[in-house]
Amino acid sequence: MSESAYPPVAAHLDDVEAARTEGRRKMEWALQHMPILQSLREEFEADQPLAGETIGMAMHVEAKTANLVELLALGGAEVAITGCNPLSTHDDVSAALDTHENITSYAVRGVDDEEYYEAIDAVIAHEPTITVDDGMDMIAAIHEDHPELIDSIVGGCEETTTGVHRLRAMDDDGALEYPVFAVNDTPMKTLFDNVHGTGESSLATIAMTTNLSYAGKNVVVAGYGYCGKGVAKKAAGQNANVIVTEVDPRKALEAHMEGYEVMPMEEAAAEADLILTTTGNRDVVVDEHFDQMKDGVLLANAGHFDIEIDLVALEERAVDVYEARDGVEAYEMDDGRRLNVLAEGRLVNLAAPVALGHPVEVMDQSFGVQAVAVRELAANGEAYEAGVHDVPDELDREIAEIKLDAEGVDHDSLTDEQREYMGSWDHGT
Amino acid sequence: MSESAYPPVAAHLDDVEAARTEGRRKMEWALQHMPILQSLREEFEADQPLAGETIGMAMHVEAKTANLVELLALGGAEVAITGCNPLSTHDDVSAALDTHENITSYAVRGVDDEEYYEAIDAVIAHEPTITVDDGMDMIAAIHEDHPELIDSIVGGCEETTTGVHRLRAMDDDGALEYPVFAVNDTPMKTLFDNVHGTGESSLATIAMTTNLSYAGKNVVVAGYGYCGKGVAKKAAGQNANVIVTEVDPRKALEAHMEGYEVMPMEEAAAEADLILTTTGNRDVVVDEHFDQMKDGVLLANAGHFDIEIDLVALEERAVDVYEARDGVEAYEMDDGRRLNVLAEGRLVNLAAPVALGHPVEVMDQSFGVQAVAVRELAANGEAYEAGVHDVPDELDREIAEIKLDAEGVDHDSLTDEQREYMGSWDHGT
Amino acid sequence: MSESAYPPVAAHLDDVEAARTEGRRKMEWALQHMPILQSLREEFEADQPLAGETIGMAMHVEAKTANLVELLALGGAEVAITGCNPLSTHDDVSAALDTHENITSYAVRGVDDEEYYEAIDAVIAHEPTITVDDGMDMIAAIHEDHPELIDSIVGGCEETTTGVHRLRAMDDDGALEYPVFAVNDTPMKTLFDNVHGTGESSLATIAMTTNLSYAGKNVVVAGYGYCGKGVAKKAAGQNANVIVTEVDPRKALEAHMEGYEVMPMEEAAAEADLILTTTGNRDVVVDEHFDQMKDGVLLANAGHFDIEIDLVALEERAVDVYEARDGVEAYEMDDGRRLNVLAEGRLVNLAAPVALGHPVEVMDQSFGVQAVAVRELAANGEAYEAGVHDVPDELDREIAEIKLDAEGVDHDSLTDEQREYMGSWDHGT
Amino acid sequence: MSESAYPPVAAHLDDVEAARTEGRRKMEWALQHMPILQSLREEFEADQPLAGETIGMAMHVEAKTANLVELLALGGAEVAITGCNPLSTHDDVSAALDTHENITSYAVRGVDDEEYYEAIDAVIAHEPTITVDDGMDMIAAIHEDHPELIDSIVGGCEETTTGVHRLRAMDDDGALEYPVFAVNDTPMKTLFDNVHGTGESSLATIAMTTNLSYAGKNVVVAGYGYCGKGVAKKAAGQNANVIVTEVDPRKALEAHMEGYEVMPMEEAAAEADLILTTTGNRDVVVDEHFDQMKDGVLLANAGHFDIEIDLVALEERAVDVYEARDGVEAYEMDDGRRLNVLAEGRLVNLAAPVALGHPVEVMDQSFGVQAVAVRELAANGEAYEAGVHDVPDELDREIAEIKLDAEGVDHDSLTDEQREYMGSWDHGT
Repeated sequence: MSESAYPPVAAHLDDVEAARTEGRRKMEWALQHMPILQSLREEFEADQPLAGETIGMAMHVEAKTANLVELLALGGAEVAITGCNPLSTHDDVSAALDTHENITSYAVRGVDDEEYYEAIDAVIAHEPTITVDDGMDMIAAIHEDHPELIDSIVGGCEETTTGVHRLRAMDDDGALEYPVFAVNDTPMKTLFDNVHGTGESSLATIAMTTNLSYAGKNVVVAGYGYCGKGVAKKAAGQNANVIVTEVDPRKALEAHMEGYEVMPMEEAAAEADLILTTTGNRDVVVDEHFDQMKDGVLLANAGHFDIEIDLVALEERAVDVYEARDGVEAYEMDDGRRLNVLAEGRLVNLAAPVALGHPVEVMDQSFGVQAVAVRELAANGEAYEAGVHDVPDELDREIAEIKLDAEGVDHDSLTDEQREYMGSWDHGT
Repeated sequence: MSESAYPPVAAHLDDVEAARTEGRRKMEWALQHMPILQSLREEFEADQPLAGETIGMAMHVEAKTANLVELLALGGAEVAITGCNPLSTHDDVSAALDTHENITSYAVRGVDDEEYYEAIDAVIAHEPTITVDDGMDMIAAIHEDHPELIDSIVGGCEETTTGVHRLRAMDDDGALEYPVFAVNDTPMKTLFDNVHGTGESSLATIAMTTNLSYAGKNVVVAGYGYCGKGVAKKAAGQNANVIVTEVDPRKALEAHMEGYEVMPMEEAAAEADLILTTTGNRDVVVDEHFDQMKDGVLLANAGHFDIEIDLVALEERAVDVYEARDGVEAYEMDDGRRLNVLAEGRLVNLAAPVALGHPVEVMDQSFGVQAVAVRELAANGEAYEAGVHDVPDELDREIAEIKLDAEGVDHDSLTDEQREYMGSWDHGT
Repeated sequence: MSESAYPPVAAHLDDVEAARTEGRRKMEWALQHMPILQSLREEFEADQPLAGETIGMAMHVEAKTANLVELLALGGAEVAITGCNPLSTHDDVSAALDTHENITSYAVRGVDDEEYYEAIDAVIAHEPTITVDDGMDMIAAIHEDHPELIDSIVGGCEETTTGVHRLRAMDDDGALEYPVFAVNDTPMKTLFDNVHGTGESSLATIAMTTNLSYAGKNVVVAGYGYCGKGVAKKAAGQNANVIVTEVDPRKALEAHMEGYEVMPMEEAAAEADLILTTTGNRDVVVDEHFDQMKDGVLLANAGHFDIEIDLVALEERAVDVYEARDGVEAYEMDDGRRLNVLAEGRLVNLAAPVALGHPVEVMDQSFGVQAVAVRELAANGEAYEAGVHDVPDELDREIAEIKLDAEGVDHDSLTDEQREYMGSWDHGT
Repeated sequence: MSESAYPPVAAHLDDVEAARTEGRRKMEWALQHMPILQSLREEFEADQPLAGETIGMAMHVEAKTANLVELLALGGAEVAITGCNPLSTHDDVSAALDTHENITSYAVRGVDDEEYYEAIDAVIAHEPTITVDDGMDMIAAIHEDHPELIDSIVGGCEETTTGVHRLRAMDDDGALEYPVFAVNDTPMKTLFDNVHGTGESSLATIAMTTNLSYAGKNVVVAGYGYCGKGVAKKAAGQNANVIVTEVDPRKALEAHMEGYEVMPMEEAAAEADLILTTTGNRDVVVDEHFDQMKDGVLLANAGHFDIEIDLVALEERAVDVYEARDGVEAYEMDDGRRLNVLAEGRLVNLAAPVALGHPVEVMDQSFGVQAVAVRELAANGEAYEAGVHDVPDELDREIAEIKLDAEGVDHDSLTDEQREYMGSWDHGT
């Protein structure tokens, strides 16, 4: 079906079979700890809710995502996928996916910009009826370069804060031409993936990249959204002294009332042992901040794009740049201070050499929502107008119930009297 | 202006002058720690934004609220106030307020049901143009008994979760006939008052009522909304083992992922050293649960109404009920177990003998929002349709900035480039 | 038996019967939550291990201590007791104790210095064979004024850090003439009473004295011993930003590595919203610090004596001193700043008007150790030389086991193989 | 000087030069974050306190230890070193050390038992005057096989809990024939290395070996000594539900009062998502426990030896054993449950494939104490009798002061009046 000249992953690898075996082993480990996807596999295999759909995906291709991809294929869809970040693909997992009869994977690690977009085009050549994005690159490419496909697309899903943010801006401009579920904004994602997933995995990745610890360190968290809250809470839970920078006064106050120090980055930079950016915005750590920093400071990013730390400005003022350690570039200043940038300023829990991405369990929740959102598009996509949509609440709650069941956690239910009470307003003191 | 036969507070007290002196001392202590209200006093005294308005209030009359009441009066309004809970009024503060030329206070502690509603009628007799409620008793009384006043009312404010919940139900029924700001739902309230205010003050009140500690105790928190989250976090911060009960699967999962135990009340009741209800619903701790409980268990409520613990059922099965300690009624079961109910199941941080209500600082935030919401109603009330309205976001942010200023906390601001970036969608990887 | 002219508590009270009823009710509430003492009551009543002993005590006379006193009497001893702090006595409890045929209580709240020492003399006039102190006033008085009694004393117990510290100094000087158990230094006390007891009760007392909260506040903890650690941990658990001052570099480092800020008091004083002293030393907050403080700062002490904050110097530089609130004296500086001293600088969880002392459960542990230490003195006192002694480890462990049993907590035991392994050294890698 | 036939590390490697470059890069990264060793390098290079000494070491040979080794050599000693665990050696670091003219390194990763002990003999052949152990293998080998060397040994240092434990047993038997400093027992080690080092690095290693998270998981910590406390605290700080198993009633109570669940391993095994052993004892997780465990459970060890989990018994009852992931062996039970053992049950933060050992900063503290303890042995070793000795307190405090200086943390000092007060006992109430 693909008309693209860009070949699937196998063409890029030396030992495809070994890669497939290793990729499959990784997928199985993940699936063992993804009870939600396990439960949905049973349902999707039985019901084939995605029969007849073609799903175009641009996501981080590693073991957890692979189980979502496979679930969609098991549910009857044809799936074409590529990466959403040149450094986050696991080639072995990509190769393992590509063996599935309903799946074509173009994701290869370390491709250059041109190849990156060629791979997206290759996915688009499958003429998807549903898109699933992590950063909206697929949606953007379709709108810009393949508007002729839009009529046959029933809808899409977007995984990230940044992607949803940009989609809403696009929607406000009247430029979004099919319905997209803001999977990122569901309670089941924001309350868990961003807080626990980003929080734990970013800090563990940094610790295992540097062999340094958090106890007694000044950890500067830029941005106090869900990701920033998670990082701050988990860093404090490792006995760091957390400092928060924010641009929103209420979030700043929230951080202050949590017991963290809040200050502008210009001051925070001088205190930092580690700066971790989580804002989704650009130029959070810039030129004037580099002058303030201590020798040995660590600079890392947990936001979607590598634009939060201004590495161009940093390189300009460095007298030397060298690899201090796998995943760590040291920028040496003329006064001898060494500023250590992790994972080239890309999102550290995906792009560092030891990185494994988000923890399996939180991705199980996100991908559970993705799966039922895709199911909803296949079933009722035509009912949604073009634009950004919240995932219907009952789908989100369905995933919560599946997860609690799997964990063996029981909870109360409203009695009729309680339900009636909550809906009434005529009770006195 | 009042046509009511029900007299202001002075008529109910023996030594009014002593009460006023003490009430004024309490108000001054609070104001010393209310930087937001201090700042707004300067503005309101200068600008007289409430000139010409009559404000009818039903709130907990104690030192912190009194500073809001005085602020509104200083801003030019005539204010009539009564309590919103028969046990929460501080008579001395009520008396101190009543000395202000623009303020009439009918609030008296310990009134019976009939007097309680007479006092509300007395406030209504002032013919308010704006109402300020904590539990919507004033709004309800106007809608039920004084619909003739509605035309001249520009709007109201509601302080509590429960009140807003009931107002929304009333709004859904098309029964709410003037605009009401859901002050309870503002970020400046929910993120702080409910979490930090209810959390800290409920636990401190229980500790100082019982002389017991939290370390190693099983603390069962019923409901994991903002209040429940605050109580759970602060109890864990005192080294309690926190158990959460919930009816909403996502909140249950949220509590589980925070590291708390989650279980149905029927199981939790058997583990509990303390059960603290925060649901806003009725019949949370009922008949069958009492059988499970350990000797010496503490039962307390941090929700608005005294309906969360079914004391009628408890009394029925008790062989003896006696005051074990000030603020503690022991219900003795036929097997000798003693179930200790605090503050008669009313909200413990207001109704216990030692209770002081919410901490001063968090009320400063809530009341800051109340004050600017009232200012908005006076200025632009006619622009709002009948129904429940969110407090405009810029008002809420105004209060956050005032608070940060007062605390000496500085924060970053978006640059033009960042603002442009956040609004754009055409950036690639 | 008493030759002293100083009368027991009944002579000091107006309505002795009412006091006794109330005191007994307080004792019963406490006993309900003291499973260790409950268990020891059964043993002591059956075995009468203290028959023939006369126990002279100087302790905080309130409900929890009263249950220890009664336990000793039930165990066969004659007990005479007075307070160890003029402000910590509960007259009703003192009166209730005094009704017991084996107990004489001289403790009365609010006595002056002369009466305080007369009451100690009255206890000594009973010619104790065992002493139990909380601050070593009884031991000191016997050594200084009644050396003739020392020969017939088998030993003593000391409850506090400060008392043990002074006893060790006395021992080093060769001046301590009978054996004293350092109950304060037992794991069962230091790991629990100081950490959880002082921590929770000091903070709850301050909250309920001021109606202020901890979230976002700078709480300066002076001293990072067990008490300081408890206060710091519990304050952080209420979302305070904790600042620690220390004189010992290792403790300073320990606080730093826990994530707290560490700085000298001169700097900390300028940041503080609350300063809480826990050092056991004098002049921790002094002259030059008062100049640094913010308007509205709270100053409180959780150490044994009221010498940690230099109130003499503070009063000298104040232009006005007034009661801002029950339990709060405001010292107004000439620049208008108000420095608020709680409970006159005495230990805040005992001396504040709302104070209840340490939580019941942690005192149950301390007093359990006291009881078995007294039992040990009665049985084997002659085996101990004059000087300070650690409580025998097996007694301390006995109390731990009783407590775990009572809480229903089960734990593992070493197998023979494990015990053998722990004692061997000839195992390789 | 070496008479051993066993060759230094270079003979075991293919590309020695590449290994040395990489090893040196690792050492430099570590040294950048070891301010204490940096400070001592200046002192040792200037003073040559170890001139004339030969130091025999058996330690984990990786970047941090290497900086201690180099410090000792820079201080004038000849140093011979081998590993203390066959899986913990970094060959590149070993090779880099071996280039130093005063250092010979025999440490090679993955040697078998015979080679392991040959390497120890090779070190002993250098005829050390001082020994430095991590697990007492060197001391044991000298006592058992080379008693003729003991006369010329001035003393030794031991780094671990387990080693000190065994040395004390040996000392009790009268079998320890030269003085050994229990470096493990110093406050500067136990309060930091065990708590923060083991805690953080074990959990980060497990997270990065499994891609799993801690939020909402039941983490069973076996043993509540310093290591167990660290693991428990850090796991709770990542939102795990922590369950503690203990054999000591006081430690069990301490864990209970901290808010953790405490239960016997037999019950805990059934709840566990992760079991992490920290006891230093054998057979902590055994036969009957395996039957209780959930499918997918993780089993890991943070104690010195691989004897805490009974892998022999586990293998016997497994129907299949396979590598589920690098560093994870899955033991499949006949009912399909998979029990996942990390790092072969060896200490996980050293032996897992991704492991980096303890964080740099905490090792800086431990090794700072090691360095000054060795300095003390060289200067005054003859003053110590054979047996286990505490490191002199002033040496431990010296390291604390160096660290605080390096972190820019200032603290208070006792005034003369305060010092006098702390030493006196004649102050009244």
